[in-house]
Amino acid sequence: MFESAELGHKIDKKTYEAELPALREALLDAQYELVEKRGFQVVIIVSGVNGGGRRESVRLLNEWLDARHIDTHGMGEPSDEERDRPPMWRFWRNLPPKGRMAIFQGSWYSQALIDRVYGKTKIADLEEAMERNIRFEEMLADEGALILKFWFHLSKKNQEKRLKSLEKDPLTRWRVTERDWQHVKLYDRFYKTASQALRMTSTAHAPWYIIEGTDERYRGLTLGKIVLEALRKRLELTQPPVRPLANMPSLPRVDQQNLLRALDLTLALPKKEYEKKLEAYQGRLALLTREPEFRNLSVVAVFEGFDAAGKGGAIRRIISALDARMYQIIPTAAPTDEERAHPYLWRFWRHIPRRGRLAIFDRSWYGRVLVERIEGFCSEYDWMRAYNEINDFEAQLVEHRIVLVKFWLAISKDEQLRRFQAREQTGFKHYKITAEDWRNREKWEDYEQAVCDMVDRTSTEIAPWTLVEAEDKNHARIKVLKTLCERIEAAL
Amino acid sequence: MFESAELGHKIDKKTYEAELPALREALLDAQYELVEKRGFQVVIIVSGVNGGGRRESVRLLNEWLDARHIDTHGMGEPSDEERDRPPMWRFWRNLPPKGRMAIFQGSWYSQALIDRVYGKTKIADLEEAMERNIRFEEMLADEGALILKFWFHLSKKNQEKRLKSLEKDPLTRWRVTERDWQHVKLYDRFYKTASQALRMTSTAHAPWYIIEGTDERYRGLTLGKIVLEALRKRLELTQPPVRPLANMPSLPRVDQQNLLRALDLTLALPKKEYEKKLEAYQGRLALLTREPEFRNLSVVAVFEGFDAAGKGGAIRRIISALDARMYQIIPTAAPTDEERAHPYLWRFWRHIPRRGRLAIFDRSWYGRVLVERIEGFCSEYDWMRAYNEINDFEAQLVEHRIVLVKFWLAISKDEQLRRFQAREQTGFKHYKITAEDWRNREKWEDYEQAVCDMVDRTSTEIAPWTLVEAEDKNHARIKVLKTLCERIEAAL
Repeated sequence: MFESAELGHKIDKKTYEAELPALREALLDAQYELVEKRGFQVVIIVSGVNGGGRRESVRLLNEWLDARHIDTHGMGEPSDEERDRPPMWRFWRNLPPKGRMAIFQGSWYSQALIDRVYGKTKIADLEEAMERNIRFEEMLADEGALILKFWFHLSKKNQEKRLKSLEKDPLTRWRVTERDWQHVKLYDRFYKTASQALRMTSTAHAPWYIIEGTDERYRGLTLGKIVLEALRKRLELTQPPVRPLANMPSLPRVDQQNLLRALDLTLALPKKEYEKKLEAYQGRLALLTREPEFRNLSVVAVFEGFDAAGKGGAIRRIISALDARMYQIIPTAAPTDEERAHPYLWRFWRHIPRRGRLAIFDRSWYGRVLVERIEGFCSEYDWMRAYNEINDFEAQLVEHRIVLVKFWLAISKDEQLRRFQAREQTGFKHYKITAEDWRNREKWEDYEQAVCDMVDRTSTEIAPWTLVEAEDKNHARIKVLKTLCERIEAAL
Repeated sequence: MFESAELGHKIDKKTYEAELPALREALLDAQYELVEKRGFQVVIIVSGVNGGGRRESVRLLNEWLDARHIDTHGMGEPSDEERDRPPMWRFWRNLPPKGRMAIFQGSWYSQALIDRVYGKTKIADLEEAMERNIRFEEMLADEGALILKFWFHLSKKNQEKRLKSLEKDPLTRWRVTERDWQHVKLYDRFYKTASQALRMTSTAHAPWYIIEGTDERYRGLTLGKIVLEALRKRLELTQPPVRPLANMPSLPRVDQQNLLRALDLTLALPKKEYEKKLEAYQGRLALLTREPEFRNLSVVAVFEGFDAAGKGGAIRRIISALDARMYQIIPTAAPTDEERAHPYLWRFWRHIPRRGRLAIFDRSWYGRVLVERIEGFCSEYDWMRAYNEINDFEAQLVEHRIVLVKFWLAISKDEQLRRFQAREQTGFKHYKITAEDWRNREKWEDYEQAVCDMVDRTSTEIAPWTLVEAEDKNHARIKVLKTLCERIEAAL
């Protein structure tokens, strides 16, 4: 992995100074095209061994390019707001919008590498972490981001030399810490671990660039040229890069059976029983959220369902059991322009709750595989990959002790018609049935298919779907409350 | 202040139940109009004495209205990210966008009231805090927000009764804490303090509504009716409410003197001297930002100046002395739609740096009194009030140990022409001079006037403007660096 980066690459001053002006001008030109077109964002990872020139490289990029359109993230200790969320949250919140560039010195690789070098984790843990990084970057790339990963390498001998020379100079002495020398001792372990990690995660869409860090000029010129070429190649594409799609057929519908039709929509609760149960479950929920241990977990509840399936009503029954300061309801409407400038899941990540709180999504990230699929708002490839992206996303939530509950509220096509008609007859503006509602209704069978695919592909052991027979509102509401209570109880 | 709220207001069940359905329907109707039109946001403060029904009132609002379009903020202990910024930052970050409603249970009043009741502060401190609240709310109102402030009151006798009855019921016992009883003892102090605070801050644009909290039905109905009427009155306005403007003249220009013309633009630094000083100041800046004490403050640097005055070049000279992880440069371009949906200063508040970091604004909130004034992007009233709003904003920064440095880079009209022409002759895309640049140039004298007004009105003792003679770039860059170093030094 590091062989070519131990050859003693060097550039003499004359060559460097001769090449630099054109390189810098070209870099700026490319960056301004990026800023102007806002077609994609650039995510740069700067990592490598101590003394390999990470800090200097980040500085160079900020100097050569226009730093006003770059954010540099040191990613030191996480804040308490960050610790309250899954580890990737802090990277998501710092993802740049289209047209901007973010440099991460300290990335989604750092912790896993360090843990392994210090022997805190097993090789299998490292592998798992790297698998996740691959999938994360694949998603970023598919969402249009240009990802550049740099690794600055030094041979063991050169690292020692470098640290010693830094220590000698009174101006740079402060940069060499106890920990750096400790790392020198761990060089071989670090070498091996990094080499494994880099090999695993050097992919077609996000390869590692390993640069020998000994010679400042060689290092800088190489870095600059890679950034320039990557920018240029990407800017010259007239269309975003799309990975070839296998174009596999969906599971054909050969009979009339499907998950939704298999539901018993006759399930109902008489009013009296409903009211009794409602009070009981609301009380139980209220008590659960007041348990001291509840402060160490959080809840994400997702509501999906056909129009008029009763999502709003079910949500209202939940929140009336809760202190309003504990929850946030996120109505998923059209994305804002800031949201559109980020990868698809960004607008949901930003609402992941802190510990001790609940986030209730009225429609959610599943829009990708439902309305966006059916209406052609995204390509087939986009929604096909979304299943795995969503599973990865949800796995992170669950691992961070977030109770994730997902409800599909199922009604029949006839019941929807009845509710539409009833709504049209009420005076309430908010019950206005729009032309869009009627249009969606025409695609009922397509939606049914999409829902079944969704459940099949995203109902995992850790984040199962709860299909709720919602023909009878009473039954639906109680089932929702009961499920929520049981899931929280299990987590406590 | 509280006289009418100790009369023993009561509503019988029958009246309540007769009135409720129409009220709820009307509330929902109004809210949906708000959501649809997105003409303004609603900021609701819910406060008052313990046991007065704050929690229940917040719940009612979330139940009667559609909670999907409401955010409720408990504002408990600030997070470390919040503690790193001025106290108002956490309220700014939670201000709702147009079309949404935010309920603050715990507001910009809480801390000042508590501190005073506990005797930690003097009456003068309370008064000062209330003055600030008035100005903050005035600004919110001028930016279009509808502000509703509720105070739920109980007489001393009724408060004791209420707490006792809460304690009796096993379901509500947990809600009564040691602190609540402590507060009962402080009732008289609390009464007096609240009464002073409320009197001071009950203004035409944001009056307090004091509601007797003893009877649940009376309390709820009153609250609902106020919210409804306020919403309706506001929705019915065809134009946003504008305060009458005195329409005072500006200081007339009776001679040719002004601040900018008084600058000595012949000041220049020969190259050799420049390079020596550049290195010295950059080194000094680098060392200053590495002082341990620097971690307890932060820096906000503002760059304003005519087009081509050299803002970018000056910023580059600063950042090349810094670790890229320490700073962020914020290029102030057109606001995003999320930014446009919030009060004007929101998009700057969101970039206020954490401790130990620098934020460099390439153009800033001063756009309001420069380009927006000249181009008519906002009304005269908007930019006239901006001076004070900016002074308030900056005072908060400085009080929070943020080193605030503001630079106006001054060049002559002739020099600008020379730079425009030179830029047009370079091949660099980023130096493209646009039609807009030429248009701005035509309004040179108007801008000059606006700059002088800006400096006169916002150069305060704590946040002075530094006028930089920028005809010679070397001189300008050194003056900027020197000023920045000195200001940081003074703060350390």
